[in-house]
Amino acid sequence: MTLPHRLLILSEQAQEYEHLLAEASLPGLALVTAGTPQEALARGADCDLVFGEPALIKDLLAGLPNLHWVQATWAGVEPLLDPALRRDYVLTNARGIFGGLMSEYVFGYLLAHERAILARAAAQQAGRRDPSEPGSLRGKLLGLLGVGSIGCALAGTALHFGMRVRGYTRSSESCLDVERYFHGADLAAFAEGLDYLVNTLPGTAATRHIVDSALLAALPDQAVFVNVGRGSAVDEAALETALRSGKLAGAVLDVFEQEPLPPGHPFWRTPNLILTAHIAAPTIPADMAGVFVENYRLLLEGKELKYRVDFERGY
Amino acid sequence: MTLPHRLLILSEQAQEYEHLLAEASLPGLALVTAGTPQEALARGADCDLVFGEPALIKDLLAGLPNLHWVQATWAGVEPLLDPALRRDYVLTNARGIFGGLMSEYVFGYLLAHERAILARAAAQQAGRRDPSEPGSLRGKLLGLLGVGSIGCALAGTALHFGMRVRGYTRSSESCLDVERYFHGADLAAFAEGLDYLVNTLPGTAATRHIVDSALLAALPDQAVFVNVGRGSAVDEAALETALRSGKLAGAVLDVFEQEPLPPGHPFWRTPNLILTAHIAAPTIPADMAGVFVENYRLLLEGKELKYRVDFERGY
Repeated sequence: MTLPHRLLILSEQAQEYEHLLAEASLPGLALVTAGTPQEALARGADCDLVFGEPALIKDLLAGLPNLHWVQATWAGVEPLLDPALRRDYVLTNARGIFGGLMSEYVFGYLLAHERAILARAAAQQAGRRDPSEPGSLRGKLLGLLGVGSIGCALAGTALHFGMRVRGYTRSSESCLDVERYFHGADLAAFAEGLDYLVNTLPGTAATRHIVDSALLAALPDQAVFVNVGRGSAVDEAALETALRSGKLAGAVLDVFEQEPLPPGHPFWRTPNLILTAHIAAPTIPADMAGVFVENYRLLLEGKELKYRVDFERGY
Repeated sequence: MTLPHRLLILSEQAQEYEHLLAEASLPGLALVTAGTPQEALARGADCDLVFGEPALIKDLLAGLPNLHWVQATWAGVEPLLDPALRRDYVLTNARGIFGGLMSEYVFGYLLAHERAILARAAAQQAGRRDPSEPGSLRGKLLGLLGVGSIGCALAGTALHFGMRVRGYTRSSESCLDVERYFHGADLAAFAEGLDYLVNTLPGTAATRHIVDSALLAALPDQAVFVNVGRGSAVDEAALETALRSGKLAGAVLDVFEQEPLPPGHPFWRTPNLILTAHIAAPTIPADMAGVFVENYRLLLEGKELKYRVDFERGY
């Protein structure tokens, strides 16, 4: 590649990113933004680098003859994994910047569950004193479906609160805060005795409906399931059945098979289910710009980029 | 003192404590329990040691001629600080066992605030999707009124979530997780710029109404106040006024000047106020028995007991 590089910024926060990247004064980098997809196609045609949201980038891929590298601003890059799309470029995703926010979300809801924050608020609303003893996270067992950078951040917070942590991964055992790892066919053994099951897996063919009726049946009745990974990991009908039959104490879902969750979806009327609107860990532009800057410097040095996605594996 | 020691257990969990202490097989220790205050007076008369709740112990103090040491099962020992009561014994309180539970309570509510857990639940109830961006604890400024073992535990959790921590103490600066200490007349400077003010102070003459209109006025409008110390630390009328006038974004109170909070108290109708019923950190008998065992061993070795209360200072 020859300098200068040309970076097409395709993001709903394009102006903020343009400002942040301009401030970083990266050598040999021209920034290109566009107000509309048409503009992006026209101005971006000679760009070799792209930075932005996978859903926006997807439709422009075919119109970028010089494309070398795409830095996605999302952790999940499903829109770019469609086998019909080109794969002749380096794709890196957003990694290492969501752990803290994910911990806030997950432990906000875990503590709300132990402390009965919603039930106590309802009692207060009714003018009723609720002296019931709170539960505690201490000594409880957390199971992480997927232990990448987000899962490992959750494990660290769990240890801080005195929990024990198990992990289920394809093969990696890199997070030292996980006390025991499970792989492959050991899903039921992994689920046994868990107080909390938290899914952080990416949406791939291998993770589709991994949370099914068999896994849910292997959980203790008092368990709570949290999904901050991808909706496709869950068999939603099986989850609804488990919640309705009391085979699961509760669930907290930030992601769904179809987003936004359709108005008529049964989850709106399922008991002991908390729904949020894919807000667990928003991308913070300053953090995300930092990921790009770090990778751009590696690019200039001719080194391997960080957080490279394997198109086959899907993450 | 001559062996054997005789320990009077005066607690609502007396049976559980008797079991736990019997299991510990402490040398030279006879355990005495009583079903009623009359029984306690009769059986306890020759006891030199007492273990239990300050409110229960208070009325028996005069009937214990051989009294040498009282291990309280509470952190706050106000009932035993009445100047009319004897002070010719060693009083130790419960310390070092509430930090984790207090952290769960405080950070449960801090995260609930940042993540709008109650507002999102209300939206879900109404069948409405709430895609609003969550707040985050990262970078927020926590002010601790009082930095004993509980305050220091809160500081550790705050650092884990990326917060900065200030402390206001009489003179101690022992917790290393606090970035800056304030003392004496520096209360307004301490309050400046805080996102969260958490009171962990004991109820003493020196801390009475330390949270008054002046301190509340020194806080930013977006600040949230949390009280897990003692209700007497707060000028409740001033707090109500601050909440009603929007000079404070919210408050979470576990303790009150009068407990249980009377049914007609204005707090039941004050906006942006969360009330709980002194449940932030219940004494866990196994933990509390551990404190007694540790101190009893020090007693046998003729060493200074841990967590000794200064009757004048009040903690």
